[in-house]
Amino acid sequence: MRKIYLGLLGFGNVGAGVIKILKSRGSLLRNKIGCDLVLKRICDKNLVSKRDVAVPRELLTTDANQILNDPNIDIVIELIGGIHPAKEFIEEALRKGKYVVTANKALLAEEGKEIFDLVKRHEKSIYFEASVGAGIPIIKALKEGLSADRFRRIFGILNGTTNFILSEMSERRVDFSQALAQAKRYGFAERDARLDIGGIDSLHKLIVLVYLCFGRLVSLNEVFVDGIQRISLLDVGYAEELGYEIKLLSVAERQADELELRVHPTLIPQEHLLAKVRGINNAIYVSTDLAGDLLFFGPGAGRAAAASAVVSDLQEAALDLQAGLFRRRFFATEDKTIKGLRPIDKSRSRYYIRFMVVDKPGVLAAIAGVLAKFDISIASVTQKERKRAKVVPIVMVVHEVRERDLRLAMKRIGTLKVIKEPPVTIRIEQI
Amino acid sequence: MRKIYLGLLGFGNVGAGVIKILKSRGSLLRNKIGCDLVLKRICDKNLVSKRDVAVPRELLTTDANQILNDPNIDIVIELIGGIHPAKEFIEEALRKGKYVVTANKALLAEEGKEIFDLVKRHEKSIYFEASVGAGIPIIKALKEGLSADRFRRIFGILNGTTNFILSEMSERRVDFSQALAQAKRYGFAERDARLDIGGIDSLHKLIVLVYLCFGRLVSLNEVFVDGIQRISLLDVGYAEELGYEIKLLSVAERQADELELRVHPTLIPQEHLLAKVRGINNAIYVSTDLAGDLLFFGPGAGRAAAASAVVSDLQEAALDLQAGLFRRRFFATEDKTIKGLRPIDKSRSRYYIRFMVVDKPGVLAAIAGVLAKFDISIASVTQKERKRAKVVPIVMVVHEVRERDLRLAMKRIGTLKVIKEPPVTIRIEQI
Repeated sequence: MRKIYLGLLGFGNVGAGVIKILKSRGSLLRNKIGCDLVLKRICDKNLVSKRDVAVPRELLTTDANQILNDPNIDIVIELIGGIHPAKEFIEEALRKGKYVVTANKALLAEEGKEIFDLVKRHEKSIYFEASVGAGIPIIKALKEGLSADRFRRIFGILNGTTNFILSEMSERRVDFSQALAQAKRYGFAERDARLDIGGIDSLHKLIVLVYLCFGRLVSLNEVFVDGIQRISLLDVGYAEELGYEIKLLSVAERQADELELRVHPTLIPQEHLLAKVRGINNAIYVSTDLAGDLLFFGPGAGRAAAASAVVSDLQEAALDLQAGLFRRRFFATEDKTIKGLRPIDKSRSRYYIRFMVVDKPGVLAAIAGVLAKFDISIASVTQKERKRAKVVPIVMVVHEVRERDLRLAMKRIGTLKVIKEPPVTIRIEQI
Repeated sequence: MRKIYLGLLGFGNVGAGVIKILKSRGSLLRNKIGCDLVLKRICDKNLVSKRDVAVPRELLTTDANQILNDPNIDIVIELIGGIHPAKEFIEEALRKGKYVVTANKALLAEEGKEIFDLVKRHEKSIYFEASVGAGIPIIKALKEGLSADRFRRIFGILNGTTNFILSEMSERRVDFSQALAQAKRYGFAERDARLDIGGIDSLHKLIVLVYLCFGRLVSLNEVFVDGIQRISLLDVGYAEELGYEIKLLSVAERQADELELRVHPTLIPQEHLLAKVRGINNAIYVSTDLAGDLLFFGPGAGRAAAASAVVSDLQEAALDLQAGLFRRRFFATEDKTIKGLRPIDKSRSRYYIRFMVVDKPGVLAAIAGVLAKFDISIASVTQKERKRAKVVPIVMVVHEVRERDLRLAMKRIGTLKVIKEPPVTIRIEQI
């Protein structure tokens, strides 16, 4: 039976998970692929830390060139993460004629153009099922499952950490920092969770999905991003009273011939499936003109789930390798009906707004006056009573408004003397 | 550019949908596949009915042999449905060296062994994404996405018609026959809806999923089936009061080294994602040891959705065709940890039970007495008041019980004089 040799870059959590699967499911994979997947070398700069999977010492190296320069290694698995040196390693692997499997959404989102160009030039392939939604086979579904479909919109809950934090806040009424601390205790959040909380990880994943669905590789700075750090327990509670859950959504939405891209906290109607996605779970809601509205749901984190996705890529890569010159190679197809990106200023939405005001007569009139000037129409308003408090919240829902008008109105209202904190504004998505 | 020739068997609703996509998305597909998909011939026994897509007259024929015997046709698309003559046509196509794309779940479930054997013998491939879940790319996800995963269980809402009926009953408080009539008016139900309502369509699809997940092609008579015809508006209402929705579920569940297969109405906790699947939507909830608990959701019916799935199969078939001898061929891999099927008698579940009883003292004691004899433990009981009625419902939830014991107890209770209708029993699934 033919042997296909693998080199693993990055012997961390997911890497160890992949090795476990290769060991325990070897014969299952042999049956499916028709060849043997042999792990030939494992590179990590740290070979001291204990892992819960035993590997022969001679497989280990701290020198990536032992993998990149080994002509017998067919597939390189990159699980280092981050941009450098992952990028250089992947590029060298492609130049050396190897296939690449990676879970690196940051790299694909930030340096995808160079990577995909190199893939094309060297007539190799790159596989990245684990980059979005861990074990949910969303990449495959979008690459191959909806071949002829035209995408209308994508709503994704793409970051397990932030979804866990928001779920904790909603279910256990703890505040943001307590929920974050809990996420760290469970190992769901990195020590430096800024990429998660600030929405950057969700943005990276959105860029990968947009590439697959619309054939465009957009830059990070072309997408509006807002994280969950401003979300307070107060807003979680008021949102629920209004019939909504707050989720960090990654959104791609066709607006006529433009594409609107944004990542931000969003109020979602409680009855919608996306509102029911709790804890570290992810979900991708995709609307197309043929297949209709689809939802893909599953754990967005966890070693076994991510490793499962890596191994499904290994299966695909191994099958493609065996087909050799006749292999099928995937490139996203540009949706020519999309002419460009829609600037966030033009984007329209309903909004939830919380003002913290001095509790005295005339405050509401002052706020409403400014809103009226900007042609912003109020759908509902509640002044929340708080005993013995000098500063009280006013919670408002406003009808659809241009992002730019809302921002200007909030700036103006922020200058009113009765306003004690910058107003909190959160979009409402009526899906 | 290479041309790949298609022959279409069955010019019905979905067939017309496929033709529309091939016409309108030709260049998109060309880009993705690297060849031209050319529809060479369309066969239907009825060429008189009006379709909303124009095709050149010379493509049409009533003689399937014009397709099966045409050596230039590479791929045969079978959209006739049913067992005969679809089976004979597919077999002949395979013998003639053609690839086959089909949406025919009945055929795969009932005659799959012969079909798959023939596929193997002739080294061809058969594609059937449209057979389950219409446009949801569930087949691809199970075939390729979860390569190394071991499946624990599948819960599927696999029939759009019955889910529509149950949703109507729940949302609009109409009874079964009114909901069915409504489904027919909307075109969601066939004139003869017995396959849907009786659970047979759900069973067909379960068999296809079980083949993919466990590598076993089971017979229809190995699976317990119960339809929704017994579900009354009364039960829908009481279930909701208890915190449940009633869904027709297709279940495959690993129990130690046995596999339990069943199709039946089920009470699902309202908070579960599956309980939120409304109307003609389908959902497949899959639990694996690596990827975890996944859900795939989308419209389970509709011409465009089914046609989208057929076209994604055409893409795959065309790519495989181009790879020629080096193509990847899929066969389900048998899960050797499963030794056999678990007889339904041994299956255990909580149950919802409704008795219709004469409203007089001692009735509950009589029922409870029989249950105690069979060691069936009551979790909750409500006697529903109905003014001026001589026969009143008693609604009960019982703790986990063996199917066989429950059946025997119901039989015994059915003989009590105070019982005026056969008791209604519905399983409760605590997912």
